[in-house]
Parts: sequence; C-alpha cells; structure tokens
Amino acid sequence: MHPTLDTLDTPAAVIDVARMQHNIDRMQQRMNALGVRFRPHVKTSKCTPVVRAQLAAGANGITVSTLKEAEYFFAEGVADILYAVGMAAHRLPQALALRRRGCDLKLLTDSVASAEAIAEFGRANGEVFEVLIEIDTDGHRSGIWPEDPALLDVGRALHDGGMCLGGVLTHAGSSYELDHPEALSALAEQERAGCVRAAERLRAAQLPCPMVSIGSTPTALSAAQLDGVTEVRAGVYVLFDLVMSNVGVCTADDIALSVLTTVIGHQHDKGWAIVDAGWMAMSRDRGTQKQKRDYGYGQVCTIDGAVLPGYVLSGANQEHGIVSREGAPDADIAARFPVGTRLRILPNHACATGAQFPEYRALSGDGQLAAWERFHGW
Amino acid sequence: MHPTLDTLDTPAAVIDVARMQHNIDRMQQRMNALGVRFRPHVKTSKCTPVVRAQLAAGANGITVSTLKEAEYFFAEGVADILYAVGMAAHRLPQALALRRRGCDLKLLTDSVASAEAIAEFGRANGEVFEVLIEIDTDGHRSGIWPEDPALLDVGRALHDGGMCLGGVLTHAGSSYELDHPEALSALAEQERAGCVRAAERLRAAQLPCPMVSIGSTPTALSAAQLDGVTEVRAGVYVLFDLVMSNVGVCTADDIALSVLTTVIGHQHDKGWAIVDAGWMAMSRDRGTQKQKRDYGYGQVCTIDGAVLPGYVLSGANQEHGIVSREGAPDADIAARFPVGTRLRILPNHACATGAQFPEYRALSGDGQLAAWERFHGW
Repeated sequence: MHPTLDTLDTPAAVIDVARMQHNIDRMQQRMNALGVRFRPHVKTSKCTPVVRAQLAAGANGITVSTLKEAEYFFAEGVADILYAVGMAAHRLPQALALRRRGCDLKLLTDSVASAEAIAEFGRANGEVFEVLIEIDTDGHRSGIWPEDPALLDVGRALHDGGMCLGGVLTHAGSSYELDHPEALSALAEQERAGCVRAAERLRAAQLPCPMVSIGSTPTALSAAQLDGVTEVRAGVYVLFDLVMSNVGVCTADDIALSVLTTVIGHQHDKGWAIVDAGWMAMSRDRGTQKQKRDYGYGQVCTIDGAVLPGYVLSGANQEHGIVSREGAPDADIAARFPVGTRLRILPNHACATGAQFPEYRALSGDGQLAAWERFHGW
Repeated sequence: MHPTLDTLDTPAAVIDVARMQHNIDRMQQRMNALGVRFRPHVKTSKCTPVVRAQLAAGANGITVSTLKEAEYFFAEGVADILYAVGMAAHRLPQALALRRRGCDLKLLTDSVASAEAIAEFGRANGEVFEVLIEIDTDGHRSGIWPEDPALLDVGRALHDGGMCLGGVLTHAGSSYELDHPEALSALAEQERAGCVRAAERLRAAQLPCPMVSIGSTPTALSAAQLDGVTEVRAGVYVLFDLVMSNVGVCTADDIALSVLTTVIGHQHDKGWAIVDAGWMAMSRDRGTQKQKRDYGYGQVCTIDGAVLPGYVLSGANQEHGIVSREGAPDADIAARFPVGTRLRILPNHACATGAQFPEYRALSGDGQLAAWERFHGW
C-alpha cells in the first residue's frame, strides 16, 4: 500500500511537485528571455529527479558545492559541472579522477597561491584544468574585487601556467539581506557590472575569459538586463522558502518544500501544540530571525498545504516542536489541533531543511507520494 | 594508507576518544556515587562505538528520541530502551513489532487521549506496553505538572486500561539557559523533587510507579542528592560543546567533538580566512548566541586541538566558513593561516553538528583515525 499524507511516518520532507515545476519554469523562462544560459545550483536539493526536471526545462549544466555532488551527478549522467567553491589543493586528485572519467569539471579560485597549486598539479599530471576566477561584487564572502590588481595575477598564474582560464564567476549572496525590489535590482546590476568589468580587464590583458557566470536566486529574479553575462546560477528558487518570501521573490504559495508532522501533545495553559518536527527535522536555520517577519522555525499549514495565518513553529528541541499562535495564546489549541492531527510546516531555508532528510516525499497532484532519494555528507 | 588529520578529506567530524572516555567516566562515576542508574540518551551520537563505551562504563539501557534509534540499537544488541518522546498513535505498530522481537521498549505519554490510544491498541493486539508518564518540572516543553489532577487520570487510563504503568519521567531542559552553579543546583533539585512528588501522588492513589527517571546534562552534573530517583538520563555530556561550556558544566578542553577544516582563501582587508566548514558542516545551531559568550558558529583550534583564543567561525554559508578574530581584524591572517592550513572548530551544539555527518572520525591518542558510522533520518 502506498503511503499518503495521512499515513506516511512523520516527520517527512514533502515536495509539492506542481509548485516545484512552476518554480523551474518561471526561472528558465526568465533566463531565456534575458538571453543567458542557466546552470542550477544542485546543493539545494541533492536529488536526481529535481535536477532532471531542471535540465529538462532547459538548464545547461549544473553547479555543485562539493566534489561529492559532482561525483554523484556525473554518475547520473550530468557531465557539465561547475564546482563553485574555492579549490583546495588536497582535492585535486579527486578532481583529476573525475576529469579522466570524462566529467567536464570546472574549478574555481581566487588566489595566486591556489592558482599556482592547480597549475603545478595539472602540469605534473598532464591535465589542463578549466578554472574560473571568483569575483567579489558585494563583499559578502570570497573573491577578488574587479579592480584588484591580483585579478590579473591569478589570471596569468592559470593561463601562463598552462591551465584553461575559463572565465569569471560571482555570487551576490548579500541579496538575501534585502527586501525591496529597487534594492534587489540595484544589487543585480552591481553583480552583473562587476563581473563583466572583471572579464573586460582580463581580456584587455590578453587573457581569455569566455564565461561570465553570476547569480543568486534574489538577483536572478530581479535583474533588468544581463549584457555581457553568459550564464546565471541559482539554487533555492527550485523549492523556495520563508527567507525568499521575506526577500520578496516568491510568495508562501510558491514554497514547494514542507515538513509533515504529527501533533503529539499540548500545553493547554500556554496555547501550545507539541509536534514531532523539532530542529532535527526543520534544521536549526533561523534565517527569518532578522527579516521583516520572523516565522520562528516555520509557518504552520494544514495537511493540504493551506497556510494557517499566525500559527508558527515557535520553538524546537531535537524531536519536539512547539506550535503556537503569534500574539495571544490560543486557548482552544487542543480542540483545533487534537493529538494525531497532521500539519505541514514551511521551512525558513529549504537547503538546510532538506539536508536533514535522507529522502524527499514527492507529492503529485493526485495525492500520490514518490520517494526521492537525497544524499548526505561529503 | 590510513588517513591522518593531515590527509583526511575536509570537512570531517572528529571525536577525541580520550576526551569522550573521560566524559563518560566522569558522568558514570557521579551517578554511581549518587546511587542511581544511568541511561544515556543516544540521540547525541547515534553511533554504536560511542554507545558501547557508555554501556561498558556501567550504563543501564539507553534513551532514544526516535523509533529508528530504537530499531538500530536493538539490532546492535541493546534491549533496554526508553523512547522519551510522547507516543504518537500511528507509531504503535512499529513499537509493537519491536516488543514482539524482544526489545524491552518503554513508551511515554502525557495525555489521557494518548494513554487511551496506547491501551486500546495494546489490548487489541494482546500486548502490555510499559508506559511512563511525562512530568513537567520546569515549563520548558511537554509533560504534566506534578500537582495536576490529570496525572492520576493518565495513570488510571494506562493501569486500568491493562498497560504496565512504568513510572514517571522528566527533563529539565531549561537548564540549558542557566550559567551559575547555584541556579543549576536549584533547578536539579526542582527537577528531582517534582518528579518524585509525581511518583508519590501516583503511589498514594494505589497506582504503581517503579521508575523515577530524570535528567539533562546540566542538572545531572549539578544535583547534590537524588533521593527517590531511580535513574538519570543525559545525552550531550558524552561529547560536550560550547553551549555546555557556557552553562559551566565543562571546559573547552572537555569538548570531544570538533570539525576538521581546510583554509581555502582569504579576504585580507577584512582579516578573514575562508574555510571549507560552513553551516552544512557545523549545522545552523547558534546556541551560544544568547549565552554569556557568543562563539558565532564555533571556536577555532589548531589541528592539534589547541584553542586559538579570540578566533571564531564568525560567519557561515553552506560550504564556506569565515574565520576571524574577535575585536580588531587580524591583518596578518593570511600569514597566520595560509591556504591549505588545517584547523579544528569546536561546535556550539554537538547533537546538531554530529547530525550533519554520515560518520565520525575517532581520533586515538596515537593519532590513528577510525571511521565510526552515524545514522541519519527517521
């Protein structure tokens, strides 16, 4: 007998397949209209059916955050893979093995030291690694500023060192901190212009720079034009979450991931329903804490996915969550959500919540549930 | 060739076996001196070698937070298992199957509705479930207050319903919010007295109450006496973490879990070293955020485990961490921690950080590393 939302063991990570497909189509159509290729970041789902749907919609290649993701999806038939984390020298043998097996793996660096280590290892092994240079366009993490003299030093270390200088890459991760369309558009333009400027500097120095790769979900959905950009990357758009809803690039009705949970008790005086989705299920992510609306550990919905306004997962222990109403406690919570009631919780952060589960449960429009494996670790 | 801390892929979850054994011995000796049995909570490690070490030191049975933990450790030979989360009716067939296979599984409830559901299912299947009643002694989560009339109603629903009323259980989880020895001792006494009082009320009503089970790591390490208690439960003491160090029940040198990471880049102007341990490795747990000392996502140590005072993991993306110095930025950070440097990060919360990894790497005094499997999901 196939499980349904009424019989599935809880907690479970449920993907609404129709919503996911809508999110995929929306992004791909936008990228098509902007005239750029799209390379989804698979760190969000780490799940083959999700990635197949992204590729079927028109994506060109994938982005990964670990070499384990690269190995997994290469085994699943995806060859064009960009590893978008600065390359550590001790991982070069693993990258070499992937390339030798036919994987079109692209690496990333933002320092002369790492560029030289890649080039030295490449030459010693007769391998021409394709390497992109990471550009910093918003100061949030890694990368070289577009005007930094070091940019050309890294380019030369790769190119003159015999490697294939594949281009430049940036990620305006500070977009997660914004919540106004104008600010998002402005950051999207800053991300585009900075990365294009870095490409122009390399080319002016007679260095190759075929790829200009930018992106984050908020900027990808806010850019007015992408002149000079060859591809966009984004990850969380495929499922969305409450953080993205606060940023303003989706609504709660776009969120395709939820955690199915069961009410296991109450604290009547406090207006609490205790559920079996704690932080082990939701993750410890409190990404909405500093946003315009704080959802605690998540927004409570009915088993059918309808938002229950004002009800949030206000607290979480490892396997216990506390459902309560914002503002005045709900004195009738035990009658509203009796023991055994099933609820669904929208997560703050889809990447973090998904990582807590070995599999998603993919919910089709007809109520059927399929098990979609998700992998774990490094 | 066996990996060492210098060659192991990163990020990796490293357990210092000597520290772990010290923590186990300290707790077991304390419980022996207080004259109570000890039932470790295995949700912290979900790892057989850790649990075997706890049992070898003298523990009596284990506590679990999911039935998957019960199934896993029963298959590993542990029969005496207490499932310390309020029983959901849909899980009764799974509990029945475990008992039919010989597992001495004990359940928990705090409501008449759940007690009746357990009794009804038990009678229908010819099974006498052993069930404890959850007592609330500090208002932090689930349970019935010791003086609440509902306590006797639940007791009768179980006993008169034909089940085995196993006793009472409480967990003073609010102890995590304290940081003074006097406050911890006072809460430990409140936890003990409240649970013993609940047991006395059941006995006065001619209901059986053989077990009086209490505990949390902070209260277990702070109780002056445990009169009337039959057993203590605690989980995180086996590895400890920065939250427990802030609470005051361990020092940084007792913390047996760390995340091995590699420096992959720098932002010189900001005094940042970028490492390959982000929130996917550390978890999103920011448990020290509201404590007397906030460690960001963790305390930075050398590869040998020596604390580097003032250096913390101040930021984290999925696979990137930012190491920086508290106060004035370290202008020499690239010279101090060049690309390729290996560091170890002490976690805020050992239960959450461990859950991010499919295995621990157990570090012996001679520098040998063993792989210790850890399981995932529900």
